[in-house]
Amino acid sequence: MADRVAVIGLGRMGLPIARNLLGAGYALTVHNRTLARAEELVREGATWADSPAAAARESRIVITMVADDAALEAVAFGESGLVAGLGREAVHVGMSTVEPATSRRLADAHRGTGSRYVAAPVFGRPEMATQAKLWVVAAGPSAAVETARPVLQALGRGLSVVGEEPSRANLLKLAGNFLLAAMVEGLGEALTLVEKAGIDRLDALRTLNEALFASPVYQTNGERICRGAFSPAGFQMTLGLKDVRLVLKTADQLEVPMPLAALAHGHLLASVARGRGQLDWTAMAEVLREAAGLKPLGPA
Amino acid sequence: MADRVAVIGLGRMGLPIARNLLGAGYALTVHNRTLARAEELVREGATWADSPAAAARESRIVITMVADDAALEAVAFGESGLVAGLGREAVHVGMSTVEPATSRRLADAHRGTGSRYVAAPVFGRPEMATQAKLWVVAAGPSAAVETARPVLQALGRGLSVVGEEPSRANLLKLAGNFLLAAMVEGLGEALTLVEKAGIDRLDALRTLNEALFASPVYQTNGERICRGAFSPAGFQMTLGLKDVRLVLKTADQLEVPMPLAALAHGHLLASVARGRGQLDWTAMAEVLREAAGLKPLGPA
Amino acid sequence: MADRVAVIGLGRMGLPIARNLLGAGYALTVHNRTLARAEELVREGATWADSPAAAARESRIVITMVADDAALEAVAFGESGLVAGLGREAVHVGMSTVEPATSRRLADAHRGTGSRYVAAPVFGRPEMATQAKLWVVAAGPSAAVETARPVLQALGRGLSVVGEEPSRANLLKLAGNFLLAAMVEGLGEALTLVEKAGIDRLDALRTLNEALFASPVYQTNGERICRGAFSPAGFQMTLGLKDVRLVLKTADQLEVPMPLAALAHGHLLASVARGRGQLDWTAMAEVLREAAGLKPLGPA
Amino acid sequence: MADRVAVIGLGRMGLPIARNLLGAGYALTVHNRTLARAEELVREGATWADSPAAAARESRIVITMVADDAALEAVAFGESGLVAGLGREAVHVGMSTVEPATSRRLADAHRGTGSRYVAAPVFGRPEMATQAKLWVVAAGPSAAVETARPVLQALGRGLSVVGEEPSRANLLKLAGNFLLAAMVEGLGEALTLVEKAGIDRLDALRTLNEALFASPVYQTNGERICRGAFSPAGFQMTLGLKDVRLVLKTADQLEVPMPLAALAHGHLLASVARGRGQLDWTAMAEVLREAAGLKPLGPA
Repeated sequence: MADRVAVIGLGRMGLPIARNLLGAGYALTVHNRTLARAEELVREGATWADSPAAAARESRIVITMVADDAALEAVAFGESGLVAGLGREAVHVGMSTVEPATSRRLADAHRGTGSRYVAAPVFGRPEMATQAKLWVVAAGPSAAVETARPVLQALGRGLSVVGEEPSRANLLKLAGNFLLAAMVEGLGEALTLVEKAGIDRLDALRTLNEALFASPVYQTNGERICRGAFSPAGFQMTLGLKDVRLVLKTADQLEVPMPLAALAHGHLLASVARGRGQLDWTAMAEVLREAAGLKPLGPA
Repeated sequence: MADRVAVIGLGRMGLPIARNLLGAGYALTVHNRTLARAEELVREGATWADSPAAAARESRIVITMVADDAALEAVAFGESGLVAGLGREAVHVGMSTVEPATSRRLADAHRGTGSRYVAAPVFGRPEMATQAKLWVVAAGPSAAVETARPVLQALGRGLSVVGEEPSRANLLKLAGNFLLAAMVEGLGEALTLVEKAGIDRLDALRTLNEALFASPVYQTNGERICRGAFSPAGFQMTLGLKDVRLVLKTADQLEVPMPLAALAHGHLLASVARGRGQLDWTAMAEVLREAAGLKPLGPA
Repeated sequence: MADRVAVIGLGRMGLPIARNLLGAGYALTVHNRTLARAEELVREGATWADSPAAAARESRIVITMVADDAALEAVAFGESGLVAGLGREAVHVGMSTVEPATSRRLADAHRGTGSRYVAAPVFGRPEMATQAKLWVVAAGPSAAVETARPVLQALGRGLSVVGEEPSRANLLKLAGNFLLAAMVEGLGEALTLVEKAGIDRLDALRTLNEALFASPVYQTNGERICRGAFSPAGFQMTLGLKDVRLVLKTADQLEVPMPLAALAHGHLLASVARGRGQLDWTAMAEVLREAAGLKPLGPA
Repeated sequence: MADRVAVIGLGRMGLPIARNLLGAGYALTVHNRTLARAEELVREGATWADSPAAAARESRIVITMVADDAALEAVAFGESGLVAGLGREAVHVGMSTVEPATSRRLADAHRGTGSRYVAAPVFGRPEMATQAKLWVVAAGPSAAVETARPVLQALGRGLSVVGEEPSRANLLKLAGNFLLAAMVEGLGEALTLVEKAGIDRLDALRTLNEALFASPVYQTNGERICRGAFSPAGFQMTLGLKDVRLVLKTADQLEVPMPLAALAHGHLLASVARGRGQLDWTAMAEVLREAAGLKPLGPA
């Protein structure tokens, strides 16, 4: 029989992850800031817990998937927090995109209480979470990663284990999101050039991707840009901004100038300042189109 | 029987292209600034022509593959130039990476003499030319493109025809090279971050490419960066700088601000100023490593 | 008795320069692309010449103040051009802001015909030209500079002689215009920050300039930005863009990465693309305000 | 008789400030993390206090001049902190360069205990502090500012009062330091261009400053760059980096993209990463010279 697993945080990513685990046969406990998000899962067989500590007490593996560093620290620490509730040998799998420094604090705290911490951020948008097509990048003590492995494999199409130090997984996740932001910036500039030259953007995108990158993410992100298909968001602008901010903060600490990250940050920030915070982050390309004197596409 | 084809310009790209056409059974005429580069081809069956005009007179299709805009104009215009020598209904296929404006001038000139001009720049490095794995992006009058089609298909793994106006193919080629420069800039920054965090760069690259891009060009360019494998150059820094310069010039004329192109231009220029002009353009990543206080890899 | 002086190019700068020379007692010949601009000067005592060569033939010193490199080359070269008309020992004083390379070509041409070339670009807007408050930066053969000195001193509040090689004066002029563009970019960003913090921008400007720079150009340019006083232009956006383009072109040739020049270029280009080409170049600050989600000031 | 004044923080700025107040006839209490820095002042008549609270208890006006936001919060809060010790109607004058948000927290805390908080950051380097030539930018409740006015006037050549909300003074200080960083970046690029054109940099600087800015800070900072006079530091690189970091953080919160601030941040960060953290921040220009292929000046 499978381990009991808890999922804390039932947002756009956490909910499909929880449902997939239920579907995979795991006994599941869930907790969320608001009960409403959990109701359907409870009808499908999950058990509700009133606090992170309560969720932790019953489970061998506790997954957290919350909004940001502050939310993760709130869930982990404090009286009814996860660290207090987790049994010895239990494993906390932190899937949120957070700073490496936050992961280091968590790893220390868990070590102090005898439980273990694995950082396991994921690449993929909510619809990929639903289809169990996430890619998980995990790091933590080997035995803990092995405990978590079947659960992580149930969530996605791939799992990369990148060492024993949890913060490494977070750094790679940030590096990956930076590369995606760089791609969006590049596509935004290239497709604006193409547009002002009077060439059909979708044709140009297909040609360039076939000839050069052969990469599905270039195609799908490029199509969003060409079509102005920014709503509903696949990856929301405000979250993209948050992540690039973490990239720059981490780079600052490591003394790594990242001018392209700074450029993308500026364009994401301008997008939010111009009222586009709820759109897909590919709407960043609109800032580039407007700079070229073109009228914005899609919803303002 | 196949048409007689001429190739003018037997550099690192032109030579393997010529050889592939010979291998495909075409009657081949060649011309180059220096005879030496042609000698082997002549031994293999090609005919030497003393000038572009002479090469043009005997051929239905004339391919030019020369260093830059100035070289292309020199080959095309003037007394013993291509435009003067080309028969009515013959087709000039310009494969060099040049400004759209140069293509417009050539198209006008050919129209004036009754011959036709197809712009057909290629994506791919010399070793891909050798393996007939180039990707050709062509534009020009339909009938002329159809005349050239079998020849273009003999050179590569793919052919995109992007309209009747030749300059569009050049603009797409520039857009593509910009996207590659953007990728190199992105990889350079991301891999420097990874390195200063103490993570193995090749492992990180593989993980990020598997999880996100699934793109061979990310893998191969990223590997060059990680290994410091900048010599011999696949695509030489000075040529990359030339191309990004053309991107910025074209964007300036079309009133398209391209800050990422400007950023990449600055890093390519710094690389040349620091004596790395002969290296592969992925050595641009060294500028980023040095900014982070790391010692340069590979040859200075 | 003073030398006969000619002024070729009666635009917003050339006209007040010519009038000041007339006022200073010089015998004056004028030429312009369109006669209309000269009519008033002729009524005031100037002599009209039908071509640059005609103007040159009668004069010891010929000042050119034309729009750009192409206009200067058109005036200098060709059948009825200045170089052909200028007597031995006569001096051509080029006051336009052009590339150093253009000055080098002119110096060579004049040397070939026995006349001499002094580059003498000026700092100052049209109203300063009217008030004879320009600052002239001159370079050329010493004897030629001495010949021109009284004329140059009649135009402005200061004259810097920076050597025998004319192109140096042009390079310094470009460096100066770059520093002004950098100042406008800096003020635009700082004053947008101030505005979004709810602080009065004119108060902030006065405080910062008093405390730090004590510089009139900070005050006057900053006031234009704060008041949205972009029309009529003191220094027109399209001319500012042209000059920063020359800075980048010159820097590219000298292998000097100038990221701040590239940044300012992008913002000037965006301003032109957004239809603000006729405004004062301080309207560049509007691009920064818009990026911060603020509504544009002044005329769109 | 003058009020008793305390100075907390006797670093490179705080020490000369304290000495000037002693010289101006104020009864002075001092506190510092290490007693050694205070010994000379005590011999000259100052009274030592063992804690911020002790210094506060005896004084009508307490000046803090500490390294950064964390140091200021440590001095203000806690058991033996300033807020706890300050009497009703006493005034805390915070002169450190900190985030506006830190000033808001302090203002709230003082309001809660009946004391008052004035933010009064200063422009000027240590030698200007010694000569009582600082420029003070102050904001806070009017009555509190009036209480502090004679003390602030004893320190400098100018005082700007910018409103009742203390954080405004901090924001203006950050905006000012950003403008200085922008100037250094601009000078660094312009003087590198000049150098590679073979022109004497000091001559060029003098010409450009006379012709354009007429600003002492351009001259003095430019001279440091030209001479490679980076040590001893007037304003240390690490402090400059800290301040530009605060600019970017504040701009991020206010949703103001500041690409030039990001550019300067990158160059300051690169300077620190390359081991130049202890030099004057004008050594940032070396990053630009190196990018142009020139050998570094001054101490590495």
